[in-house]
Amino acid sequence: MTHRIMGKPSQATWGGRFSAGPAELMLQFSESVSFDRRLAPFDIAGSKAHSAMLAHVGLITAKDRDAIHGGLDAILAQIEAGKFTWDTKLEDVHMNIEQALTKQVPAAAKLHTARSRNDQVATDMRLFFKHACAVLQEKIRSAERALLATAEANRETLIPGYTHLQRAQPVFLAHHLFAWLEMLDRDRLRFAEVADHANWCPLGSGAIAGTTLPIDREFTARALGFVDAKGRPRVTQNSMDTVADRDVFIEFASAAALFGVHLSRIAEDLILWSSAEFKFVELHR
Amino acid sequence: MTHRIMGKPSQATWGGRFSAGPAELMLQFSESVSFDRRLAPFDIAGSKAHSAMLAHVGLITAKDRDAIHGGLDAILAQIEAGKFTWDTKLEDVHMNIEQALTKQVPAAAKLHTARSRNDQVATDMRLFFKHACAVLQEKIRSAERALLATAEANRETLIPGYTHLQRAQPVFLAHHLFAWLEMLDRDRLRFAEVADHANWCPLGSGAIAGTTLPIDREFTARALGFVDAKGRPRVTQNSMDTVADRDVFIEFASAAALFGVHLSRIAEDLILWSSAEFKFVELHR
Amino acid sequence: MTHRIMGKPSQATWGGRFSAGPAELMLQFSESVSFDRRLAPFDIAGSKAHSAMLAHVGLITAKDRDAIHGGLDAILAQIEAGKFTWDTKLEDVHMNIEQALTKQVPAAAKLHTARSRNDQVATDMRLFFKHACAVLQEKIRSAERALLATAEANRETLIPGYTHLQRAQPVFLAHHLFAWLEMLDRDRLRFAEVADHANWCPLGSGAIAGTTLPIDREFTARALGFVDAKGRPRVTQNSMDTVADRDVFIEFASAAALFGVHLSRIAEDLILWSSAEFKFVELHR
Amino acid sequence: MTHRIMGKPSQATWGGRFSAGPAELMLQFSESVSFDRRLAPFDIAGSKAHSAMLAHVGLITAKDRDAIHGGLDAILAQIEAGKFTWDTKLEDVHMNIEQALTKQVPAAAKLHTARSRNDQVATDMRLFFKHACAVLQEKIRSAERALLATAEANRETLIPGYTHLQRAQPVFLAHHLFAWLEMLDRDRLRFAEVADHANWCPLGSGAIAGTTLPIDREFTARALGFVDAKGRPRVTQNSMDTVADRDVFIEFASAAALFGVHLSRIAEDLILWSSAEFKFVELHR
Repeated sequence: MTHRIMGKPSQATWGGRFSAGPAELMLQFSESVSFDRRLAPFDIAGSKAHSAMLAHVGLITAKDRDAIHGGLDAILAQIEAGKFTWDTKLEDVHMNIEQALTKQVPAAAKLHTARSRNDQVATDMRLFFKHACAVLQEKIRSAERALLATAEANRETLIPGYTHLQRAQPVFLAHHLFAWLEMLDRDRLRFAEVADHANWCPLGSGAIAGTTLPIDREFTARALGFVDAKGRPRVTQNSMDTVADRDVFIEFASAAALFGVHLSRIAEDLILWSSAEFKFVELHR
Repeated sequence: MTHRIMGKPSQATWGGRFSAGPAELMLQFSESVSFDRRLAPFDIAGSKAHSAMLAHVGLITAKDRDAIHGGLDAILAQIEAGKFTWDTKLEDVHMNIEQALTKQVPAAAKLHTARSRNDQVATDMRLFFKHACAVLQEKIRSAERALLATAEANRETLIPGYTHLQRAQPVFLAHHLFAWLEMLDRDRLRFAEVADHANWCPLGSGAIAGTTLPIDREFTARALGFVDAKGRPRVTQNSMDTVADRDVFIEFASAAALFGVHLSRIAEDLILWSSAEFKFVELHR
Repeated sequence: MTHRIMGKPSQATWGGRFSAGPAELMLQFSESVSFDRRLAPFDIAGSKAHSAMLAHVGLITAKDRDAIHGGLDAILAQIEAGKFTWDTKLEDVHMNIEQALTKQVPAAAKLHTARSRNDQVATDMRLFFKHACAVLQEKIRSAERALLATAEANRETLIPGYTHLQRAQPVFLAHHLFAWLEMLDRDRLRFAEVADHANWCPLGSGAIAGTTLPIDREFTARALGFVDAKGRPRVTQNSMDTVADRDVFIEFASAAALFGVHLSRIAEDLILWSSAEFKFVELHR
Repeated sequence: MTHRIMGKPSQATWGGRFSAGPAELMLQFSESVSFDRRLAPFDIAGSKAHSAMLAHVGLITAKDRDAIHGGLDAILAQIEAGKFTWDTKLEDVHMNIEQALTKQVPAAAKLHTARSRNDQVATDMRLFFKHACAVLQEKIRSAERALLATAEANRETLIPGYTHLQRAQPVFLAHHLFAWLEMLDRDRLRFAEVADHANWCPLGSGAIAGTTLPIDREFTARALGFVDAKGRPRVTQNSMDTVADRDVFIEFASAAALFGVHLSRIAEDLILWSSAEFKFVELHR
């Protein structure tokens, strides 16, 4: 997986071992660019930070770094404008961007220095999940504000409290809305914790066993925002674990599933309250 | 659910609404004491803290509290000695302990003051999960120590590192073992976070709408160890949410599932290494 | 859901109840055409069969039927050529096709006669799953033929049989390959059973309570291939169940998951056998 | 796993490979008798059929067979009377019964002839699931009869039909009950199919590679009821697949999960209808 055949786009990246190219069906099966292209902004950020570090420790020149950064910025602009041509034959988001970059910036070949697709994709994913968690936290906070405003506007409204859908004790509507707010608050906390777990920089782990080159992992971590509350860089501790670890993926899925359960409970209440039998609320008319 | 028929063990606890008792099949279906009896130590701790609080605020006398505590301690001793008679007709762990206690300590009837089975079971479960997380964290730490000792004893041993089970680069066995250690460390952290999420006292939430009695929720929380790192009591914020919230259950299941995946990966490595083809390790002979 | 506002594409189909249109966010959330467009061939087949039946019982004229069929065929050709313009504002595959059809064939408005989107989508989905099961059965059969050929070509090859990955007894490679074949055979049978469960025609169930019009459900069922082994039409028996039933979806997912487990086991064997330690097979070089 | 240490109950069954016995913790972890004891009736039926076959082909004497049958019947009677002593140190249900039998009937040692625990447990499980499916089919049929009687007794009752819990069209209560009946009918069919998939006899597969002894697999299959609709015996086709195959377990779990979803939907309707707001039904008073 470390040896890549440059300039032969129809060859898969592990060409070295075989005398013939992979079957067409295999290429279709193993390509991921049709869905991992959404990692592009994170992939580009990772490559910029990595090349900045390479220049910082003297493994590439400042000129090469600047050429690489310029090329990556241009590609990102193209992608954001919907003008970048994605090629599923180039397997994944990394190869697509790399090919496009190398055509324009020969120095881009040096981006491989002290980096493998293994630690590259691990970095992309962690940046992706940190971002997704941040977006979700903000969206949840916005829903919480809406609940607070609704509670405020209906301070005195009483509704039945139910156990097993049998009327039990009267409660304030606001009390019920605040129950929803508690659920959402826990969801927000969970996404914050997932983001915190994602917040360790994988770069430098290589394919599996790190690198012998004199890189500065903390420089890269800092450049990508993998820092703790006090701004200190956080780098993963074991290269084998780093390239195999998918815990954050599962944690995110788990937090999202629980969040979905809560939204479903809220929706169920609203559906019930909107029925002709309950008539507690009426959706906009 | 709030009205209980005392002294009629064959009647379910929601007897008020119906003129006849429930069907035998229904009793069998709804009983939980065959599995929730493991909550007994936590149920008893919860009742002791609750009655201590009731005495503290003057809702029962110190004498009643002492009688209740004595009775509960005796029941716990019986349970631990395997001498307590569990009765599935009494539905759940709460009713079994309550009936046994009331027979010996008439004052036990006052335990219902300002408490429902809803906030009672929520408390039991949170104590249970806090305990389970603590046990698991200690067991994981013990496994980590064993891994460290094995790595230390095999400092210079090299094994192949694999990608896709093809030999890639040689790595130290210790490096591989430390990859396992990282996985376990994340599991330990997750259980610590689940325990932290469980660490809020539900008592005082009642069936759904709290209580109008002048209780002291922070007293109870402190008595049960629902306190933050600085010893400040933590009580749940919304009574409706508190009695419906099962997030911690799911979080625990999720953390346990991920832990199971890690143990499975370690076991898979050992199975592979024990094969005649790999022969990297030999189990005790 | 039964009342549709024609000619106002920016209005959702349940416009009757509200004085204003839905929020832009709601439209984005509820649109499904971005993924249900793959139902198009089945949706069109369903509409052709339904209009043929309407003409058969005299609810529309033969001329209207022919016009509708011509329009639907033209739309399908456009879709297959990638020239159809899908509009996410038109919510789903049904509305997209309906709007396009009505523009060209005014009689298409009569397609609503005795049909609701509820039984329409149920029909589309059953046709989709019948088709998916047929494709999978053929693909599995093709894999089985490859296994048979490999076994035939290696009749005398012996490999170790393993229990817990410890060598147990020597077995023929063909015996191992036939074990895979058994697994695949069960998968094929399961997809056949899912297809059989899908093989009942929902049309005529309406939104929930059927229709009072004199339709001929068996005609439609026959036209769509919802027939038993002897060619007798099969129609679903209860309209409420029909429009709510999603069992076949879950059955298909379950069969596919088990099939995935089998493919994973086969892949795991091949990965193991390809390792330097086992060296039983070598992938194409 | 094929070599068993007789008369040394504290040794695990794979003792041959190791110089010392397993750790106490390992024994606790690997024992299954605390839950697989419910397989006892099926394990005993399997052993009776197997020994009958051994006598039929002349591998044991009729006298030995009768002694084994007598011993197994006595053990089953003990188990059913709750007088059998289960010993978790003896790992599983098979070893417990075997030890008890061998103590009384020396000829029982010959039960190992042409049988391994691998095909033995596969047989037990298939018998178990066939039985479970039969019980469930009968229970479901009983529920269907109750629904039919309720529909019959309320022929003219009209209730609102709902879409999205908004009143749509009036429907007969019987129509709604028949929708439930359709769901249950599909569940019943699914359990019948799972039973049919389980209906192949594994005995004769040995540990993994069958046996060279002149056994009669069809005799055993017939004795255990592994026969098709015409009474012809059904035996599994590939020994490696047979001892590894767990498809029926997953199919049963899947059918049970879907059945659970249906019961949950019915329960949800009843909960809704029992509410003060709907008041369509009143549970027994």
